[in-house]
Amino acid sequence: MNKKELFELIKRKKSFLCVGLDSDLAKIPTHLLDNEDPVFEFNKQIIEATIEFAVAYKPNLAFYESRGSVGIRSLEKTIAYLSKCKNEAFTIADAKRGDIGNTSKEYAKTFLDSYGFDAVTVAPYMGEDSVSPFLTFRDKWVALLALTSNKGAFDFQLIENKENGKRLFEEVLETSKKWGTTDNLMYVVGATKAEMLADIRKIVPNHFLLVPGVGAQGGSLQEVAKYGLNSQCGLLVNSSRGIIFKSNDKDFAKTAGEEAKKLQEQMAQILDVKNLL
Amino acid sequence: MNKKELFELIKRKKSFLCVGLDSDLAKIPTHLLDNEDPVFEFNKQIIEATIEFAVAYKPNLAFYESRGSVGIRSLEKTIAYLSKCKNEAFTIADAKRGDIGNTSKEYAKTFLDSYGFDAVTVAPYMGEDSVSPFLTFRDKWVALLALTSNKGAFDFQLIENKENGKRLFEEVLETSKKWGTTDNLMYVVGATKAEMLADIRKIVPNHFLLVPGVGAQGGSLQEVAKYGLNSQCGLLVNSSRGIIFKSNDKDFAKTAGEEAKKLQEQMAQILDVKNLL
Repeated sequence: MNKKELFELIKRKKSFLCVGLDSDLAKIPTHLLDNEDPVFEFNKQIIEATIEFAVAYKPNLAFYESRGSVGIRSLEKTIAYLSKCKNEAFTIADAKRGDIGNTSKEYAKTFLDSYGFDAVTVAPYMGEDSVSPFLTFRDKWVALLALTSNKGAFDFQLIENKENGKRLFEEVLETSKKWGTTDNLMYVVGATKAEMLADIRKIVPNHFLLVPGVGAQGGSLQEVAKYGLNSQCGLLVNSSRGIIFKSNDKDFAKTAGEEAKKLQEQMAQILDVKNLL
Repeated sequence: MNKKELFELIKRKKSFLCVGLDSDLAKIPTHLLDNEDPVFEFNKQIIEATIEFAVAYKPNLAFYESRGSVGIRSLEKTIAYLSKCKNEAFTIADAKRGDIGNTSKEYAKTFLDSYGFDAVTVAPYMGEDSVSPFLTFRDKWVALLALTSNKGAFDFQLIENKENGKRLFEEVLETSKKWGTTDNLMYVVGATKAEMLADIRKIVPNHFLLVPGVGAQGGSLQEVAKYGLNSQCGLLVNSSRGIIFKSNDKDFAKTAGEEAKKLQEQMAQILDVKNLL
């Protein structure tokens, strides 16, 4: 999906909600465990209940890989199911990959070509040749880690460069934006640091930002929108546990739909106030 | 495997060689393609031919994930096969993971508990809570990226901190060494930057270093040993393509064994000269 189509989708659904499919087998409702593939069944019902309100889905690879080849089958079925909703959902593999060139090339093929995700999250530590292989696929995206939502973000991401005073996450933005374009590169910026979105927007005014950390991790949607919105929305705000595990009873899908709807309604209002609809 | 056992293994085999199982289906000998699981068959024959000369094996996850659940089955079978060689091989999942705490915890369980690898490579960008979940398993290890072997290493890893003049990879070493011990934390340092191993040894004199980049990437074993060896060896030097793809004909395993033997013989001499045997 390209940028224009993504913005069209956002306007049509009046939403920039991404639902994180952190579908931990140990946390899904127990009545699903009788199914042949409980995690896929869970995802399917979550997607059905939320697709009216969400523009993107982000399976977190950790929760699929943890069950070996069986878990990968659940992922394959989930992405196949999402593919049927073509032009209804932007799909992101939350994989946080990044390795030397020939290895990154292999990961890129896996996520963007074989699985067919629209985007994959990538870690910047190894530099350009670890990221650029992901940027060679038409209408596909890298979501590059810039400023993450966790406590450990403070360990290295805020270190100031002796040469120019820029913090590491700013260096990552400045340097990496030359590797791609606003049509194939977006950045991961944690909602827990919303006020720093203003600094980020000075460097990448036109890029999409993928913002995790709303909900369970404590970030505020209003704050994120205040500092992060641009003229083409420019935001995908992710909620995982706050939607998919809000109930772990038989009503889990319905409850997930209601939580997604609440966020979508706030998003519709935000987009409306900013004259983006 | 703990540090003492690893050093015993190194002394017994007179080797600190790690064989990288970057087992790309597109590059393995074509006569193997008739097998039910060609990649596993390739790995099995490579392991049989090299285990006399190597102390460690490092499957590169990219080349297994690229074939979805089928590829993961090849990995599962490979690690099961390696487990049978208990105390004969230290096993490293080259996965370069790293995510927020609950996700890293899931990755850690996957690689160190479910698969049962001895170690997993981890990226440092997200800081302590992204790394520490991997450090909670008895006799298991994190191999944390410090200074990588690729060109992109120059993009961010050498940025100097305004506060203390330290380069980012030095900050990663200084900060992260407090998260673990010399018994559960090792560092990835590229062989292509061997002279910088001297700087690294000032910060982490007693940690093991996992050194990729010898062979196909151009690093020199003698240089690595000169700057990197410590009193308990402290090195695992990896070669992937230079061993496993040296021949892609029917003699591939025999040739891999010969290449491994050449490196092992150089390593035996290095260890002998340093009185480590």
